[in-house]
Amino acid sequence: MGIHRYFSSLTGLERIIRCPGKFKFEEHSVAAHSWKVVQYAKTLADIEEQHGAVIDWKKLYEITSSHDYGEIFIGDIKTPVKHSSPELRHLIQQVEEGMIAHFIEENIPEEFKPTFRRQLREGKDDSLEGLILEVADKMDQVYEAFSELQKGNTEKEFVVMYRNALVKIKRIKLACVDYFLEHILPEMVNEESLSPVDIKRITEEALAQ
Amino acid sequence: MGIHRYFSSLTGLERIIRCPGKFKFEEHSVAAHSWKVVQYAKTLADIEEQHGAVIDWKKLYEITSSHDYGEIFIGDIKTPVKHSSPELRHLIQQVEEGMIAHFIEENIPEEFKPTFRRQLREGKDDSLEGLILEVADKMDQVYEAFSELQKGNTEKEFVVMYRNALVKIKRIKLACVDYFLEHILPEMVNEESLSPVDIKRITEEALAQ
Amino acid sequence: MGIHRYFSSLTGLERIIRCPGKFKFEEHSVAAHSWKVVQYAKTLADIEEQHGAVIDWKKLYEITSSHDYGEIFIGDIKTPVKHSSPELRHLIQQVEEGMIAHFIEENIPEEFKPTFRRQLREGKDDSLEGLILEVADKMDQVYEAFSELQKGNTEKEFVVMYRNALVKIKRIKLACVDYFLEHILPEMVNEESLSPVDIKRITEEALAQ
Amino acid sequence: MGIHRYFSSLTGLERIIRCPGKFKFEEHSVAAHSWKVVQYAKTLADIEEQHGAVIDWKKLYEITSSHDYGEIFIGDIKTPVKHSSPELRHLIQQVEEGMIAHFIEENIPEEFKPTFRRQLREGKDDSLEGLILEVADKMDQVYEAFSELQKGNTEKEFVVMYRNALVKIKRIKLACVDYFLEHILPEMVNEESLSPVDIKRITEEALAQ
Amino acid sequence: MGIHRYFSSLTGLERIIRCPGKFKFEEHSVAAHSWKVVQYAKTLADIEEQHGAVIDWKKLYEITSSHDYGEIFIGDIKTPVKHSSPELRHLIQQVEEGMIAHFIEENIPEEFKPTFRRQLREGKDDSLEGLILEVADKMDQVYEAFSELQKGNTEKEFVVMYRNALVKIKRIKLACVDYFLEHILPEMVNEESLSPVDIKRITEEALAQ
Amino acid sequence: MGIHRYFSSLTGLERIIRCPGKFKFEEHSVAAHSWKVVQYAKTLADIEEQHGAVIDWKKLYEITSSHDYGEIFIGDIKTPVKHSSPELRHLIQQVEEGMIAHFIEENIPEEFKPTFRRQLREGKDDSLEGLILEVADKMDQVYEAFSELQKGNTEKEFVVMYRNALVKIKRIKLACVDYFLEHILPEMVNEESLSPVDIKRITEEALAQ
Repeated sequence: MGIHRYFSSLTGLERIIRCPGKFKFEEHSVAAHSWKVVQYAKTLADIEEQHGAVIDWKKLYEITSSHDYGEIFIGDIKTPVKHSSPELRHLIQQVEEGMIAHFIEENIPEEFKPTFRRQLREGKDDSLEGLILEVADKMDQVYEAFSELQKGNTEKEFVVMYRNALVKIKRIKLACVDYFLEHILPEMVNEESLSPVDIKRITEEALAQ
Repeated sequence: MGIHRYFSSLTGLERIIRCPGKFKFEEHSVAAHSWKVVQYAKTLADIEEQHGAVIDWKKLYEITSSHDYGEIFIGDIKTPVKHSSPELRHLIQQVEEGMIAHFIEENIPEEFKPTFRRQLREGKDDSLEGLILEVADKMDQVYEAFSELQKGNTEKEFVVMYRNALVKIKRIKLACVDYFLEHILPEMVNEESLSPVDIKRITEEALAQ
Repeated sequence: MGIHRYFSSLTGLERIIRCPGKFKFEEHSVAAHSWKVVQYAKTLADIEEQHGAVIDWKKLYEITSSHDYGEIFIGDIKTPVKHSSPELRHLIQQVEEGMIAHFIEENIPEEFKPTFRRQLREGKDDSLEGLILEVADKMDQVYEAFSELQKGNTEKEFVVMYRNALVKIKRIKLACVDYFLEHILPEMVNEESLSPVDIKRITEEALAQ
Repeated sequence: MGIHRYFSSLTGLERIIRCPGKFKFEEHSVAAHSWKVVQYAKTLADIEEQHGAVIDWKKLYEITSSHDYGEIFIGDIKTPVKHSSPELRHLIQQVEEGMIAHFIEENIPEEFKPTFRRQLREGKDDSLEGLILEVADKMDQVYEAFSELQKGNTEKEFVVMYRNALVKIKRIKLACVDYFLEHILPEMVNEESLSPVDIKRITEEALAQ
Repeated sequence: MGIHRYFSSLTGLERIIRCPGKFKFEEHSVAAHSWKVVQYAKTLADIEEQHGAVIDWKKLYEITSSHDYGEIFIGDIKTPVKHSSPELRHLIQQVEEGMIAHFIEENIPEEFKPTFRRQLREGKDDSLEGLILEVADKMDQVYEAFSELQKGNTEKEFVVMYRNALVKIKRIKLACVDYFLEHILPEMVNEESLSPVDIKRITEEALAQ
Repeated sequence: MGIHRYFSSLTGLERIIRCPGKFKFEEHSVAAHSWKVVQYAKTLADIEEQHGAVIDWKKLYEITSSHDYGEIFIGDIKTPVKHSSPELRHLIQQVEEGMIAHFIEENIPEEFKPTFRRQLREGKDDSLEGLILEVADKMDQVYEAFSELQKGNTEKEFVVMYRNALVKIKRIKLACVDYFLEHILPEMVNEESLSPVDIKRITEEALAQ
């Protein structure tokens, strides 16, 4: 029993595939997703710093890198399920937190328990770091869905995923969100695409909401 | 909207992998699992018939072939989660049933709605057919776990899965269960294996409970 | 030797991929195909019952779930080979039946031999159940080929497979075939598609034959 | 219609997996197998030259590189089927040759037809080059089967495949076979292995036949 | 041209597989590896803080998350090549740095260029953060190699990789290294294993150097 | 130590994937690529013979089948790296040759060393056989890139790869190149394609250079 159990469990997130059950041209593991969120968050925080904000880098490091660790216990429960009722959503979060707490209790040495409890808590709070994590997480949804649409994936789910993620990003009032919407998103939308779907129009509609 | 939506959704169960997150030498889709359960159930029912039972083959056909259809909506939610509390288990089942009901409402033509509602209901009741389904479903867990252990998989989860499935099968009082335990299981256990785990002892312990 | 050998052989059909050698966006195992045929046949039989037919559900269960079991011994021999001459077709069927007979002789306990012989016989006879199996099997060919064309697969083989399956379905005079052609197929054909091939025209031509 | 059709068909052999239906730690395509046979044959021919034989290198090049091209049309028909009766074996070979002949007729320009007919004929005749091809082809069976056994694969088929290939190699009286048996095989057999099977004993028995 | 090009390039590291060419029971992408290094480094830094060190979390975040980004341009050039001569090693590093510099020059907006140059520089310097990165990177080599050996992989390369990584970790004088060697490594080594290799002895020898 | 080490290393080239890091609809191993190059070269040499050239078939056999063997030691180092500076290119070739020389020294028996040194040398010299190898190697690049573009792959790299390979082929003055450009390439370019890229125009531009 010890930190080895935590470290060796990480590879489990290489085997959990996001968006299970849908046809995809490319699969993404929760581990690879987590790494990309770390990367986006880093640049988003750089942008905030350029606009004068003060970043708690230790906190940002902790919450972004571990933000989906709980999926080791509950898998990638499909978004529609997670959100089908506030009651269920709450209960699933409770179970996830219970299983994380139990894992820490059983495996992590006494002196590290507070650290792991802090790191594996739900990070998406209203702090600047929590909001950056929320933006970075949704940005990866945008990238994953766009990449499928671009290759000609006709499953409706990816249109919905793309639009919903954009809507959620747009509602967060941060300088880095402005930068994303004004400088990064337009480059993406202008790339060549096989999609029979009109991505530009969907993007505009989502941003107009 | 129509039955096409149901038929085209079936392929989604070819993309849902059982036991996500664990290292496996072989992956099994929910579709392939469902087919094997259909096959086991057929032979289990044959054994029951030989012992004088009367089988409702239409019912058995319906409940075995569709028994995991709901995983299209909720994925293979990991067993420990599903069972972590009676409250959660109940709520997850409620959501699954709600999503199936919603799917039928939206997509299935009026004249087929009663049929689909009956077919996609939870089949594991106390009828003979419901019990056969329960045994067949657990038998596939035995086969999947044994096959991993046999190849030398050292993840503890497969020992637990193997033992729990055996214990559940053993508690069901049917002639076909006796046949499985006396004639089929011993053949399996005597196969060559790389496992550092003593499968015979685990089998005996499970059956002694 | 016993039924264990039959049950443990089933997983072999998860490893036999349909339509070997052709580029495919998605691969389908014979096991997953068999499960989908079981599902289609169930609904086709429901439609027949609605039109007053009497279904032998036990027979339908047996012949649909086992209809490709022989591929464990001979693989998915490519259709053009199987049909290149009546002589070869006959001989290959003979070998397949011989290998199934040999497997039953060697492995299945005496009291189950008649049952397995009946279940693993060629099911596509002129009975209502045999015809439903034939329709269901061809329907999966339609679904597999359509799904590849829809994703933009340009291999001619999938056009041929789609058309031939439709032609064969259309020639079977059953109420469920009418339902398929009038209600299910049009929904499929109207889905969004990347195909440079004109699927609607091909469908009309096949149905006009 | 032209040679492009031949060249573009080659990639189909990258999609045909050898030994379909069996559990394997590693899969091998017919294309990769063909390349390894080309490599073994080259060294076997070098050994023959060292012992004074004269090699027709153009012929050897042709027959080794194309020796499994026909599997594009008939797939990897499982060995037990191919050999289940002399009648079937003969008929399958007839169909394969018929399909190759038809392909050449339809696609290859007039001036190259004789060349392709010669290259795509069955190469395993009694000439020195034909015998080298036979040895090289069986050597790859030895390597594939050994590699699975070494990793702990417990499917009996690989023991049978290993033994049968050795027996066939041993019966061919060539200097390169002596070299293989005396210098190459012992190195292989002495490698570390997880196999619960006693590979050394099986090797000795096969060589003693 | 802009940061979008950087973000969309990240997915390329999900497609670069570590340790190409060797048989592996499990493959790891550079993206997943990078995420695990981020996780290990976080805990190693926590241990250092507990021992009184001061961590520059922003720097640690930057250098760990981006430490293998250059592999997008040069792939996972095999370790033996990279180290075959100091001259080559130097030149390859020069090329990698040149390609990163060129990428930044071409794609990153003026105001972010200094940031990206700092983030994508070689991070393994003699600072505390640089040393933590070196330990974390080698720890993942230990985990990857151990996991293969544990499953019975007999390729010698994984023994060499395991031993070399341990030797390199051991030479770094940090409190977190002591913790790893005394508390984490022993747990790993005591896990159940199929390996015909004596991992405990190899571990002891490496630590004794 | 002996030829077994060479033979057993070949399977490593089945695990090295060409063009690492880019999204591909189909992956190709170096082994399968090598086999296709062997096949193209055979036909190119046939064409040369028809035009009166004399082919050294033994040499052609040797250099085509082994032409990428060195990738076992250095992987598929990405073309842009290999070519980023003449100095680096030279050094990488030096390392590759050094590793091959070392492998032969360590493993190949004395009497075969000269043979292996000749076979594993860089084959692309100015001899007729060396030029045919160069054309065949580039032809496979054309086929691989075209096949991706045809399926709708929008990664720019495949356009560049396609064009560069054509330009290199066109500069080699051989009868077989004329045949390829006049008879084979047009068939390819006229196939149905999803590509948003105008392949015909790119082809014409490349040939006009």
